[in-house]
Amino acid sequence: MQRIRGILAPVVTPFRADLSPDSARLIAHCKWLIAQNCGLAVFGTNSEANSMAAAERMELLDAVVASGVEPARMMPGTGCCSLTETVALTAHAVRHGCAGVLMLPPFYYKSVSEEGLYRYFSEVVQRVGDARLRVYLYHIPPVAMVGITPGLVERLLKDYPGTIAGMKDSSGDWNNTKTFLEAFSKSGFDIFVGSETFLLENMRHGGAGCISATANVNAAAIHALYARTRQRTTDHGPATADYADAADKDGKLTASPTVERELKGLQAELNAVREVFTKTKWPSMIAALKQAIAIYRDDPEWGRVRPPLTEFTDEQAVALRADLEAIGFTM
Amino acid sequence: MQRIRGILAPVVTPFRADLSPDSARLIAHCKWLIAQNCGLAVFGTNSEANSMAAAERMELLDAVVASGVEPARMMPGTGCCSLTETVALTAHAVRHGCAGVLMLPPFYYKSVSEEGLYRYFSEVVQRVGDARLRVYLYHIPPVAMVGITPGLVERLLKDYPGTIAGMKDSSGDWNNTKTFLEAFSKSGFDIFVGSETFLLENMRHGGAGCISATANVNAAAIHALYARTRQRTTDHGPATADYADAADKDGKLTASPTVERELKGLQAELNAVREVFTKTKWPSMIAALKQAIAIYRDDPEWGRVRPPLTEFTDEQAVALRADLEAIGFTM
Repeated sequence: MQRIRGILAPVVTPFRADLSPDSARLIAHCKWLIAQNCGLAVFGTNSEANSMAAAERMELLDAVVASGVEPARMMPGTGCCSLTETVALTAHAVRHGCAGVLMLPPFYYKSVSEEGLYRYFSEVVQRVGDARLRVYLYHIPPVAMVGITPGLVERLLKDYPGTIAGMKDSSGDWNNTKTFLEAFSKSGFDIFVGSETFLLENMRHGGAGCISATANVNAAAIHALYARTRQRTTDHGPATADYADAADKDGKLTASPTVERELKGLQAELNAVREVFTKTKWPSMIAALKQAIAIYRDDPEWGRVRPPLTEFTDEQAVALRADLEAIGFTM
Repeated sequence: MQRIRGILAPVVTPFRADLSPDSARLIAHCKWLIAQNCGLAVFGTNSEANSMAAAERMELLDAVVASGVEPARMMPGTGCCSLTETVALTAHAVRHGCAGVLMLPPFYYKSVSEEGLYRYFSEVVQRVGDARLRVYLYHIPPVAMVGITPGLVERLLKDYPGTIAGMKDSSGDWNNTKTFLEAFSKSGFDIFVGSETFLLENMRHGGAGCISATANVNAAAIHALYARTRQRTTDHGPATADYADAADKDGKLTASPTVERELKGLQAELNAVREVFTKTKWPSMIAALKQAIAIYRDDPEWGRVRPPLTEFTDEQAVALRADLEAIGFTM
């Protein structure tokens, strides 16, 4: 199976009034994202995955796959605090034929050793014991507090080449991403940035794409920048190479000034949308994404979140609409 | 049912070679603790509870109760990241007649609002919907990162008096414990310190006891200090009052110099034992406790931990034994 690359959304999870997961709305949203060339990193941080039980996650995945969504376009989050739940969720995703799984490190204990994390991931790979497994390590220190280090990736890649397929870097620190890109991107280790803010830079340096919350509402535009960086053209550098290849050789993009301007323009437009959703006046970015879907689909049901998150007040919803209209946002 | 007070151990969980929970060894350890006047806070941080799936925890609780251990002496940890799992574990513990449950806040998302946490705990209490439920809120910011604030306790106590029964403060900050004691201990809110280091001070100020990792190996001595502070004697103050009563009136202990000296001596002995287990040269305190049990029961099976934790090396085991022998420790 071809590796999954490009743009993925950590798909937000709709909840009914009794806070149970709403599979019908989730499926509709997944299909809308797929139609915009957006892969599905269901059960990510922005999906409130850790606010759901393992059984709830498996039932939702069953429902989404049964609806006809291609598992080859999916990278479900499966990393829990417990080895046993992580193994169960991962094996379930592999059985469905998902392109890969996005795996948080166990995040309850803090300051755990690299050796302990190695043993954890190693144990998961061995217990799942399926050649189809593709693991994407999930580095999100601001939330998980426990992170993925280059030393850990090196050990895992050495012992499980092919299975350890890549990572998502949600550190928000470009220097960290660059460290991983320089060390591992040539070993078939696919690096996704956790925010489209770094998408252009990631593609210039051999990255694989981005898995970003805002793809839930802005997938087409984010994909457009990704696609432009992949276009083979003499404007972009050597006629025989696309962006990633060019970056592999000399570490910098060789686009013409015109193309460079266009790329930066696309990136700036993405950043403007993201800035609205990350404003600190909202209860959370997750609630903001759901509220935007509620507004643009005219479907208030979408606004709900599970505690400990809180949804938008009516006043905040009005403010979000105004902020999005001010930048000409549509979805 | 009488409130559970005194000394409780976050019971360490033995694992077999395949890392499955070893219920037979757990039951034997629980019975040994009970025999030393130690209550059972099974499935706490030191139990590696979050390294187990919810189903594994429920099966273990079933086995421990079936073995004849009194549920009235148990306070299982039931707080998960997800509302649904927390409700399932809590309802299960209540059905067994456990004295209470020790509830972590949902700990994946950081910087969540007090309102969000209030809704979470409120939802759990309402969904469990059982008058027998006694919730002890678990404040352990160094690990969970998400904490319990006085404002949260005030709201929950007001809306669920009787059900919100107390807290465990593992902040390691006596000033924080004192803040809660002063604000809530007279409202029937039982405060347990998370380390026996603060036991004497907690009992002087109206606290309920302690729930401490080291109780797994030193329960009798920790209970001895607790019992001494509860003894009614003119040496301790007014003949009609025990320590807690005396502290409630004037905020300080009125023991005679002789008793004061004895209490401080007992406290110092406890601290000396704790210091050995918290040395930074060990892989973790949890592994150290298990290694001590392995040594003193001559049962190497006890040394195992689930990843991401790591067990003692042979050299570390020798060093632990030497350090414990040096202070004359026995169990």
